Amino acid sequence: MTEGLTRRLGGRLAFGGDYNPEQWDEAVWKEDGLLMRWAHVNLATVGVFSWALLEPEEGRYDFGWLDAHLDRLHAAGVAVDLATPTASPPPWFTLAHPDAMPVTDTGVRLTHGSRDTYCLAAPAYRQAALRVATALAQRYGDHPAVAMWHVHNEYATVCWCDHTADAFRRWLRGRHGTLDALNEAWGTAFWSQRYGTWEEILPPRATQWHRNPALALDFRRFWSDEALAAYREQRDAIRAHTAADRPVTTNLMVPGYQILDLWSFGREVDVVGIDHYPDAPGTGAAADIAFGADRARSFGGGKPWLLVEQGANTVYTADRTLPKEPGDILRHSLAHIAHGSDGAMFFQWRQSKAGAEIWHSAMVPHAGPDSRIFREVADTGAAVARLGEVAGSLVTAQAAVLHDSDCWWALDGQGLPSASLDYHSELRRAHRALWDAGITADFAHPGDPGLSRYRLLIAPALPVLSDAAAESLRDWVHAGGTLLVQHFAGVVDTNHQARLGGYPAQALRTALGVRVEEFRPLAADAALRLSDGSTSTAWSESLRLTGRAEAVAAYTGGMLADRPALTRHAYGAGTAWYASTRLDDAGYDALVARVSAAAGVGPELPLPTGVEAVRRHAPEGPVSWLFLLNHTDSPATVEAAGHDLLTGRPVPAAGLTLPPGGAAVLRQE
Amino acid sequence: MTEGLTRRLGGRLAFGGDYNPEQWDEAVWKEDGLLMRWAHVNLATVGVFSWALLEPEEGRYDFGWLDAHLDRLHAAGVAVDLATPTASPPPWFTLAHPDAMPVTDTGVRLTHGSRDTYCLAAPAYRQAALRVATALAQRYGDHPAVAMWHVHNEYATVCWCDHTADAFRRWLRGRHGTLDALNEAWGTAFWSQRYGTWEEILPPRATQWHRNPALALDFRRFWSDEALAAYREQRDAIRAHTAADRPVTTNLMVPGYQILDLWSFGREVDVVGIDHYPDAPGTGAAADIAFGADRARSFGGGKPWLLVEQGANTVYTADRTLPKEPGDILRHSLAHIAHGSDGAMFFQWRQSKAGAEIWHSAMVPHAGPDSRIFREVADTGAAVARLGEVAGSLVTAQAAVLHDSDCWWALDGQGLPSASLDYHSELRRAHRALWDAGITADFAHPGDPGLSRYRLLIAPALPVLSDAAAESLRDWVHAGGTLLVQHFAGVVDTNHQARLGGYPAQALRTALGVRVEEFRPLAADAALRLSDGSTSTAWSESLRLTGRAEAVAAYTGGMLADRPALTRHAYGAGTAWYASTRLDDAGYDALVARVSAAAGVGPELPLPTGVEAVRRHAPEGPVSWLFLLNHTDSPATVEAAGHDLLTGRPVPAAGLTLPPGGAAVLRQE
Amino acid sequence: MTEGLTRRLGGRLAFGGDYNPEQWDEAVWKEDGLLMRWAHVNLATVGVFSWALLEPEEGRYDFGWLDAHLDRLHAAGVAVDLATPTASPPPWFTLAHPDAMPVTDTGVRLTHGSRDTYCLAAPAYRQAALRVATALAQRYGDHPAVAMWHVHNEYATVCWCDHTADAFRRWLRGRHGTLDALNEAWGTAFWSQRYGTWEEILPPRATQWHRNPALALDFRRFWSDEALAAYREQRDAIRAHTAADRPVTTNLMVPGYQILDLWSFGREVDVVGIDHYPDAPGTGAAADIAFGADRARSFGGGKPWLLVEQGANTVYTADRTLPKEPGDILRHSLAHIAHGSDGAMFFQWRQSKAGAEIWHSAMVPHAGPDSRIFREVADTGAAVARLGEVAGSLVTAQAAVLHDSDCWWALDGQGLPSASLDYHSELRRAHRALWDAGITADFAHPGDPGLSRYRLLIAPALPVLSDAAAESLRDWVHAGGTLLVQHFAGVVDTNHQARLGGYPAQALRTALGVRVEEFRPLAADAALRLSDGSTSTAWSESLRLTGRAEAVAAYTGGMLADRPALTRHAYGAGTAWYASTRLDDAGYDALVARVSAAAGVGPELPLPTGVEAVRRHAPEGPVSWLFLLNHTDSPATVEAAGHDLLTGRPVPAAGLTLPPGGAAVLRQE
Repeated sequence: MTEGLTRRLGGRLAFGGDYNPEQWDEAVWKEDGLLMRWAHVNLATVGVFSWALLEPEEGRYDFGWLDAHLDRLHAAGVAVDLATPTASPPPWFTLAHPDAMPVTDTGVRLTHGSRDTYCLAAPAYRQAALRVATALAQRYGDHPAVAMWHVHNEYATVCWCDHTADAFRRWLRGRHGTLDALNEAWGTAFWSQRYGTWEEILPPRATQWHRNPALALDFRRFWSDEALAAYREQRDAIRAHTAADRPVTTNLMVPGYQILDLWSFGREVDVVGIDHYPDAPGTGAAADIAFGADRARSFGGGKPWLLVEQGANTVYTADRTLPKEPGDILRHSLAHIAHGSDGAMFFQWRQSKAGAEIWHSAMVPHAGPDSRIFREVADTGAAVARLGEVAGSLVTAQAAVLHDSDCWWALDGQGLPSASLDYHSELRRAHRALWDAGITADFAHPGDPGLSRYRLLIAPALPVLSDAAAESLRDWVHAGGTLLVQHFAGVVDTNHQARLGGYPAQALRTALGVRVEEFRPLAADAALRLSDGSTSTAWSESLRLTGRAEAVAAYTGGMLADRPALTRHAYGAGTAWYASTRLDDAGYDALVARVSAAAGVGPELPLPTGVEAVRRHAPEGPVSWLFLLNHTDSPATVEAAGHDLLTGRPVPAAGLTLPPGGAAVLRQE
Repeated sequence: MTEGLTRRLGGRLAFGGDYNPEQWDEAVWKEDGLLMRWAHVNLATVGVFSWALLEPEEGRYDFGWLDAHLDRLHAAGVAVDLATPTASPPPWFTLAHPDAMPVTDTGVRLTHGSRDTYCLAAPAYRQAALRVATALAQRYGDHPAVAMWHVHNEYATVCWCDHTADAFRRWLRGRHGTLDALNEAWGTAFWSQRYGTWEEILPPRATQWHRNPALALDFRRFWSDEALAAYREQRDAIRAHTAADRPVTTNLMVPGYQILDLWSFGREVDVVGIDHYPDAPGTGAAADIAFGADRARSFGGGKPWLLVEQGANTVYTADRTLPKEPGDILRHSLAHIAHGSDGAMFFQWRQSKAGAEIWHSAMVPHAGPDSRIFREVADTGAAVARLGEVAGSLVTAQAAVLHDSDCWWALDGQGLPSASLDYHSELRRAHRALWDAGITADFAHPGDPGLSRYRLLIAPALPVLSDAAAESLRDWVHAGGTLLVQHFAGVVDTNHQARLGGYPAQALRTALGVRVEEFRPLAADAALRLSDGSTSTAWSESLRLTGRAEAVAAYTGGMLADRPALTRHAYGAGTAWYASTRLDDAGYDALVARVSAAAGVGPELPLPTGVEAVRRHAPEGPVSWLFLLNHTDSPATVEAAGHDLLTGRPVPAAGLTLPPGGAAVLRQE
Repeated sequence: MTEGLTRRLGGRLAFGGDYNPEQWDEAVWKEDGLLMRWAHVNLATVGVFSWALLEPEEGRYDFGWLDAHLDRLHAAGVAVDLATPTASPPPWFTLAHPDAMPVTDTGVRLTHGSRDTYCLAAPAYRQAALRVATALAQRYGDHPAVAMWHVHNEYATVCWCDHTADAFRRWLRGRHGTLDALNEAWGTAFWSQRYGTWEEILPPRATQWHRNPALALDFRRFWSDEALAAYREQRDAIRAHTAADRPVTTNLMVPGYQILDLWSFGREVDVVGIDHYPDAPGTGAAADIAFGADRARSFGGGKPWLLVEQGANTVYTADRTLPKEPGDILRHSLAHIAHGSDGAMFFQWRQSKAGAEIWHSAMVPHAGPDSRIFREVADTGAAVARLGEVAGSLVTAQAAVLHDSDCWWALDGQGLPSASLDYHSELRRAHRALWDAGITADFAHPGDPGLSRYRLLIAPALPVLSDAAAESLRDWVHAGGTLLVQHFAGVVDTNHQARLGGYPAQALRTALGVRVEEFRPLAADAALRLSDGSTSTAWSESLRLTGRAEAVAAYTGGMLADRPALTRHAYGAGTAWYASTRLDDAGYDALVARVSAAAGVGPELPLPTGVEAVRRHAPEGPVSWLFLLNHTDSPATVEAAGHDLLTGRPVPAAGLTLPPGGAAVLRQE
């Protein structure tokens, strides 16, 4: 719920960033005030890394300096997203509580010297974190500057220590009830792993060969729940001292790995907040932003969310940080807003002059305000300030990509048939195919009870599937949905036990009209040609058609020659497609286009390649805002009319020409 | 000795696999009975991973469930290869004996959660393992179902803990007698490593730079002996309770690494049993099977052996498991039998529905009996059932590849002149060259006193060579043998001390007629051309001819221009060849062909490329069986006559045409 | 100061190597005597790895064997470089002082079994080392054989243990005085790292994410100082018992990593001694020797130094040791002497027959004296024996490359903008460009108060720069110097705090006439074209010209099109150039040539490619010696006259033709 925030921001979208005045002096604070006004900053995230100052010795708090900053910001008209500092315990914490330091799976106990040096399951850490969060809430719960609460920072650590072992066992008792049930669920008859007492159960520490995959999967679930419990503890303590219209959240990361089940976090935060740094320049950045933003929106159930961190000049690639191009700061900010963010925030306001992130870009770079970066930031602030009316509006989609942490974790495990079974790349590719086609997409959990709001579902990587979810998908197809399922789907249940008698899960076999008998992974350098001329790699399957399913394309060589590769099944009022091999990009895009067309799902409007259109619409009534973003280096003409909030001018029915890298936000009724 | 086993199997070859009924329920057991009969299964390996069920708490045994399965199998006519479960201690073992968990060389103590979590040198583990093995032997020593004993599973772990240190010291006292002798043997004057007390000696744990290579080599020898002692302990306990005609063995792995000295294991098992999974598809698989099978046969001194594990659909490559092609299950099984196995077993009967090897293929896959895999398994069972008469027959070879664990371990060490000195790839290449030429080959230890049974020996990688072995090789050449020795041979003695005055060891210098003065390793991307047009990489040597040796090919550039690269020495009645550089594959194949021809060693019969012929002959009398295996995708005509056991039909003198992937087993007299 | 050494060597250059007679027996010692005479050996480094023999039990010394060797050597006319054996504590030391074993950053405690297993900061180690060094000095301080002292061996270890933590805290108190100052210097306000007590400070042990870069940089400085203190302790103990004309030193390594600040070691040793092994064959080796030798000379302030170790047949590359080519032993030895070494020593005299370095080449190889290697060694000894008159002469340079350990360490840290910021490769490339141009170069520290002796300075990688050094460089340019600075220079001060308001440090901005506003790292595979046709990779910067600076070449595409890439600034009587991108090799060589020409710096004489000329000149008077080294495979004609010390013949004014790989040493007056 961003309503409270929007109201406190005077009906404007949020614009600003992490603000760490404790790293600077009074002269800089003064300049900050001027520059923030210049840049239309209206929200500052304060205190994320201030534990050592707030609690210089265990139990002794020093709030004076923070009082002064909050008062100053309030006086300057900048609202505060007040953070609990629990992501970075001070050095004294290590000395006082060595048992609360995190331990790796090989038994290495980490120390402070960086950040995030704690075990989330260690009582001493949880107590210390709750105490400082409570103290902050008590002191600032009613502070007029505070518009929002920011718990912790980027929950992303894991620990294998004895506290973790205790907590894991408690969680397992809750999930499985009895040891017999656990032994059955984990299949401990294999490799002589039957547990006789709860005490025998350990986290997945270093061992000789592969681990039990059901244990590994439960450990990932447990840890996500443990992090969620840590979040909820702080959230509840804050709620006890602050008004309900000041939303509490945490800044989630939505990158290519997943420690947390973000669906469950989405249910517990008042507003989904994410950090997002593109992993490629150019159009790749735009697609990555859409991918992250659509996930953020989906985790929150479609409500407006908030981009809590982006980088002013930061594109993270494997071993180097690439800069942004001129115009990116504005267009990337608009892209997030287009996909449902009620603001655009940065890490951080001022580039640190010291510390581990000295080279991380910021709104005010080392060079100071006389810089391209600050000028673009200020221009972006001015542009965002014109968009207040879109606050609270929604994005809806007719298509969704199925997304499940269990599946990600399972494909992140050991002993899989092929290293080419990668969750994240499949998830991204499915979303990218829709994005390239101009189709706005949600993500949906396969067990989501509200799938009926979609006409098209794509399941790019769905190895773990419960009976209930399989049945729900089957029924959704029967009721008229169009489903595309990709290889290695539904092969295990939620205890990671194999589906017997042919894959996938029975109800999905019914919907797809296929029975998969045998996996036939391909060599790393092998490629197949299908009967429709497309090519594929990585994987193939021997399958049999059942019901009225038909082959859309067949294999053409080897044991599988003339056997079905891509299939379609008219089932009830819907259609279910199955791709038993990994199509190359062109073939995959063509398949998604074909399936989308069959589902009657298409783009908002016809668009040149590289130009994006996303619509936000008012929760009620006919008003909507069409965001048009030209991610290319060339001018692009779009046939769309309305009132452009960025220029303040009407756009006639003939449409408009976006300059290279340009954007428009058209109010339409 | 497989006689006892064959007799208990009613004169048939063994066919079956690991059978883990504890992972299933009664309905499945019933189906198992039907399917085993259908597939002609006559041997099941039972109990490999059942410790947690057999001994649910320390010292309390539960045999009831196993009684029932053995009785059931016996009633169904399936004999049992009964396993001791010691490769996978139950979780309670970790809690009860934390000091018996294995420790890595960096001090990480592993835990259960996988399998093989024990230190072989830990008294608590050894006692527990011996106790459960003894209990099994006492209870089932006379059980009519038991036809064979299977100790442990795939000994392959190493440990660096304090128990290991103690055992290492004891072993070193046995080997070296005194500390002075040890200091002398290890050359501890280098780098100030002189030991003043036995307590100072440690396993090769993490240290600052390279380790003493003699210590490293002794540690590998010690560990292999420790594993052998653990095996013998169980074997002796079983022998005390079971008849001598029920052989005791363990399933050895013969892959691209070597923890154990398989020669010494071969001397202590009643029947050599191996696990084998090809590492490449197609002809590569066939060559790899021959390589593994010839090693298995050789470790057992030429006697029939047993393939204890193969995969129904498993080709292990670096990061993915490739499937087999139709026909492979039969042809691979026949290939092992051709090379001397008295049966073909699988891991495992039924594909596990849970656990770490959920995706490992099996005779009955997840899809159930209505599957290509089970149909091929059943057909293979029927075919193997027709081959009973070959049981006990032998394979003999005129050529052998020299193979010595010391050499493998030495080249697996630190501080070598070049990373291109790889033991396993050289060993395989030598065998492959012979296999490609249709020549059946043994492996032989360089110290083997019975080398006179061979006409041709190839030493592809022989850095460590004792004086005695060098003299034995010299005398063997002098008596008429043909020897091919490859670069970096005989450079150290068995204490890893360098041969001085020129390499290799003196007696080998005499036989080869060369004195190697200087190694000249090549850059990773460098290649040489020799005077005969062949090319080579990785290595070169500056050498001088002695005696009547002559250069067969010379180097053509650099400091070594016109100096000998490949040499031949007529020595006594024999000939010794030396290759001082690593020839490319084509040149190497040509050299092996030339040397083989000079030795008068050739194939069984002329064969098309990719078709394999191996002969097993009765221990006495004129009967033999010629196995013909077409590993290609095309029909192949072979001129050979006899009675084909697979079809039950005679094959006339004009020979037969094997279909693609086809096979024949011709009885000849 | 090599005077004392030279005098004890009878006015000759040093020639010999590490001599470890304890690894051999009396027969070998006898042969050693003959062969050393044959090879003109006059200096032997003795005792480097003899601690276990010298002190077989803690506190009990056995010098008898060493007495005998020293007496024998002295009688044979071989002087001794007597080593303290402290680089390799005996096995008993581990047992007696487990707390003195080194610990890695992940907490792994190493053990003996190699060498260098100690923590330099552990009191037990320091005491034991000092005790044995003192005992040696007491016994041999006046021994007539001893001409030089060799402390320890290749200081190159690091430790993260609790002793290290204690020592680090003491060092930090010394550097920063108060915790407040430390917190300020390290910028601990970032990530909540404020230290409340000294005890909270730890070495940079394993932690969750990036470390504080100022802590990391201080730890590197601390450790270098700790090693220096360990060296000084031994040196002072030796000086107390030996005459001042017997220099004390340690053998430094000058490879591609840097644990020590070699500038500070250079100030504390009597003679800089280095070990040098080329990392490439051919011309690469020659350039690498010049690089290492010029650094050695520079660390000693330009005085003669000593090559303590080279390999007779050793070129170390990534995963293999390449051999040397015929003639290399002599020419490499001469190359070191040309660049200022007063001798040429080897590791080691006789190739060890056992131990971790069994394959490391030596003056007498395994093959014995009847070998190419020994023959070349003996020839080299004869040649070096003719060069006695150059002892004590100097090499001077007009150009220098700026070189600072702080910069190396900073670029070896975490969180940098690009993995392409590599210190060592930039340092080497700058030196190589000068070497290829025939220009003799020094290295200089940016804070060197005597920069005025140079006309040209190149700063290839200078991220860390103090205000004082920046001002010194500015003033040096103003006074007429020519400076070339490369990208990412002067970006942080010595506390690793960023320069604000535009990079680099203010005084350097003044000298260069540029203000760098923004870094724009390039993707790993990206390349840029500049307006002058050159190309570049890795990095670009957005900068503005100030003062009278002008663009020498501009960027041609993207945001930086037409903006300055390479700049030149006439400042005072000098000129400062700035390269804001990483030029490809050809472009870089051209730029260095252009800048050198502008500075009036050129080669000794015109030379064919691959031929090197270096001049040593007498400290006083007109005599100098021109070393001419033909590193190519072809004859090379050089126009230079003089008296060739190698042939003993005059060379006329028309010059001489060096054979392929040949050399001459011309005395000129």
